[in-house]
Parts: sequence; C-alpha cells; structure tokens
Amino acid sequence: MITSSANGQIKNLIKLQKSAKARKQQGVFLVEGLRLFREVPKEQIVKVYITEEFLEKHEELLQEIEYELVTNQVLKEASDTKTPQGVMAVVKMLKYSLDELKGYDNPCFMVLENIQDPGNLGTIIRTSEGANITAVLMSEDTVDIYNSKVVRSTMGSIFRTKFIYLSMEEIFTFLKEEKITTYGAHLDGQDFYEEDYKTACAFFIGNEGNGLTEETTRLVERKIKIPMYGQIESLNAAIAGTVLMYEAMRQRRQ
Amino acid sequence: MITSSANGQIKNLIKLQKSAKARKQQGVFLVEGLRLFREVPKEQIVKVYITEEFLEKHEELLQEIEYELVTNQVLKEASDTKTPQGVMAVVKMLKYSLDELKGYDNPCFMVLENIQDPGNLGTIIRTSEGANITAVLMSEDTVDIYNSKVVRSTMGSIFRTKFIYLSMEEIFTFLKEEKITTYGAHLDGQDFYEEDYKTACAFFIGNEGNGLTEETTRLVERKIKIPMYGQIESLNAAIAGTVLMYEAMRQRRQ
Repeated sequence: MITSSANGQIKNLIKLQKSAKARKQQGVFLVEGLRLFREVPKEQIVKVYITEEFLEKHEELLQEIEYELVTNQVLKEASDTKTPQGVMAVVKMLKYSLDELKGYDNPCFMVLENIQDPGNLGTIIRTSEGANITAVLMSEDTVDIYNSKVVRSTMGSIFRTKFIYLSMEEIFTFLKEEKITTYGAHLDGQDFYEEDYKTACAFFIGNEGNGLTEETTRLVERKIKIPMYGQIESLNAAIAGTVLMYEAMRQRRQ
Repeated sequence: MITSSANGQIKNLIKLQKSAKARKQQGVFLVEGLRLFREVPKEQIVKVYITEEFLEKHEELLQEIEYELVTNQVLKEASDTKTPQGVMAVVKMLKYSLDELKGYDNPCFMVLENIQDPGNLGTIIRTSEGANITAVLMSEDTVDIYNSKVVRSTMGSIFRTKFIYLSMEEIFTFLKEEKITTYGAHLDGQDFYEEDYKTACAFFIGNEGNGLTEETTRLVERKIKIPMYGQIESLNAAIAGTVLMYEAMRQRRQ
C-alpha cells in the first residue's frame, strides 16, 4: 500500500493531473471516480490506484486489472476533485486517424476552434454522442480533451465519440476533399433553421469570448445565424453547438 | 479609499458573497466585472466598489452612482473570481410576482426542479432569454440564482429573464389555473419531436443526478423523451433544456 505522495508513482499521477505535455509524452490520461471508471474499456486501462474500501466494495470491477492500493489521503492529493471516490485509473489515450473519418455516408461533423472552457468541451463531446455526430474535429489550440475536468464532463462519451486535433488548414482540406458543406455561425448569417442539414455537413463553433476567427469565417461556405430573442449577443458555446447538432439530428430522423 | 478587508463594508461584501441567507435578508446581490456591470439597470444599483484604475478608465459609467474606492487587494478578497476587473456592485434583487406571469398569450415556461449546478442555472437563464421563454419557475431547493457563479453565467440575462422561486405545489397550481400543458422528460416518454409546442406549454427539467422526482413525473401531463444515440443515459441539464426551448421556438416561428 502506498502511504505517501512522495512515492514515485503518485508523483507521476500528480504530474499527469497537471500537465498536458506529460500526458502526451506518456500517451495516457487519468480517469477518476466509480461512475466514469465503469465506462473505461478494459483494454485501455494501464493501471488503477484504489483505496482498500474501494477494493472491498468493487472487487468484481478489478478482475485482470493491475491495481495498487493507496490511502485515502494519497488519492486525494493526486486527485482533481475533493471526493475522488476511491479510484483513479491511468488510461491509454484514444487515437483516431483522419483516414478513419473518411468515406462516411452523409456524415455530420462538429468543428471546434479554440474552445477553452473544459466544461464546454466535455459537454460538447457528450452531446455529440447523443446527437449522433460522426466526429469532433478540434483546432490545435482547443483545450486538452484529456484534462480531468473535460474527461469528467463527457460522462464517459470520451470513450465513444470520435475526435481528432488538427490545424484549421488540415480541417478545411479534409472537409473539402470529402465534399462536406461547412457552416459557421455569424451575426449576419442566414437563418439557421432555413437550411437543410440532411446531407454531409460540418458545424463550426468558435472560442467562448471571440467566436470564430476572421480567417475561418471567410473560409466556411455558409454563414448561419441561430435566432436569438431579447438582448443577448451570443449563446454559450456548448449551447450553440447543441442547437446545431440537434436540429441536424431532427431533420435526419424525418 | 478602503485599504483593509477588516472594514465593515468589505466584511459585508464577503458575507454577501458567501451566504444566500445574508443576500436574502438584505435583499441585494453582487455583480462583478466590467461586462456584467454594464448590464445592471442603474435604478437597481445600491453601491459600487471600484479601484482607482477603474475610475480613471470608466468614469462615464459611474454618473449618479454612489461609489467607494478600494484597493485591488481588498477587491480581490471580496471577490469570487481571481481577476475581479476593478468593479463590484451591490445590486437590488429582482422580484417578480406570480400575478405578473399570468395571462400571457401562449406562454412557454421552463420549470427547474432542484437544479444544483450554478453554471447550469446561469446558462439556462441566458438561453431562456435567447429562446424567448416567458419565465423560469424554480423549485425552492434549486440553487440560489444570486450566487455569483450563477449571475456570471447568465451573462446579464438575469436582468431581463423573468424568474420566481415557488414550491412544486404552487408551480403545478399556477400552471393548471393558466391551462398550460406540462411536459416532463422521461425515458419511457413520447418522442419529443412529435409533439406540438405552439400553444401554452411548460417544460420540466430535473436535478443533475436524479432527474425529476417521482411525484413530479406523476403530475406532469405529458412525458417526453429527447432522442439520444450512442450509449449516453442522459444529457446535461442545461443541454436538455436548450433542446426543449429551441424546438418550441422553432415551431413557434413558423
């Protein structure tokens, strides 16, 4: 049993918690809490750190898994949350290649440009699964999807929604090659509800404070505007994404 | 200039920051940051605490307003955020009566039962303004709308969206008297997109972890299910609310 956070393994957990670079170098990320731990595909689990109490209660979840016992206090120090619920897993990153995203029949992509809020990214990933989005394409300056807060907000969808980080140039090249219509939110755009999203399409959502960059706004084929009443200037990024994804889904189900 | 957080006024700000009870007793709440401060209707401002730098830059915003100079450090101690942006206002609470919410022509209400996440509540208030919702009715155990994090997430919509806290019993009585059809999310419900929301309606959203209570589920007239693909069990509360509100808006605009 590991009883001190000076232990090398625990030091590494703390590093993985804090540093996107460390996660990238090691090709792993952290999953905390019972609910999320249950969602991890077994073959992706590298190692699990648990408390004795967790072992007693959930031994059936740990078959054929390499685990290490730690004290409550040690787990708390390595954790991002106040109540780590007795379990933290080191999990292999998921890698999707651009080739895997090609050739879909009428795909519907979400493109995120420089989304910075972890909660927004996690919620978009979760909603993408629910709305049957083909994959989420993210600009390289979007917040790290393996950040603990993002992972938590996906509620497990991180293991099922396809995603990839690319430069905006690569994203546009891919979408053009695949003949996918690109839609970007713009205050002078067409009424969003008057367009047809039944064929191959991609929706662009921009940074929380600044929206899409000028360059991206220039490059998208269609500019659309989500109707808004009252005096609000914009919707939250995850909310705007939801309106787009669920309208595409509604049209496609008819 | 106030230079110490031991000052009585600053002590009270800290109290207002932390305690929903103190806010209720004094009938005021706090608004922080330039962007949000601009949105406060002048007649609701009780007093403003600003730094010298803020005064120099934004003197035009402070006409006919009672303000007090404070140091950066003092403002930071009273603030909920790491960067309070030089301004904190004490603002009178907004009070809507049930009578004001009566007699609307085909109203569309949001009903929140025990929503606990401040970000969710704030985002729902903001989206409600955008989707032209008549008012947001909240159960008494819903998180305090005057909590700084809620206020911030509304992005100013708190000053324009009508809202009221009531018991669930009062909410059902009101909706029945006003002949408003009540819709509650339920996994065995009707396909959400097959219903007509052009006439008077109210959408119920439940607690983040538990959804609507059994009692409420029993009492709503229509049970509906938002379609979800993949393996997700539910959508985030603000996301589910968005799907409902924007579909009602879409139908009503036709």
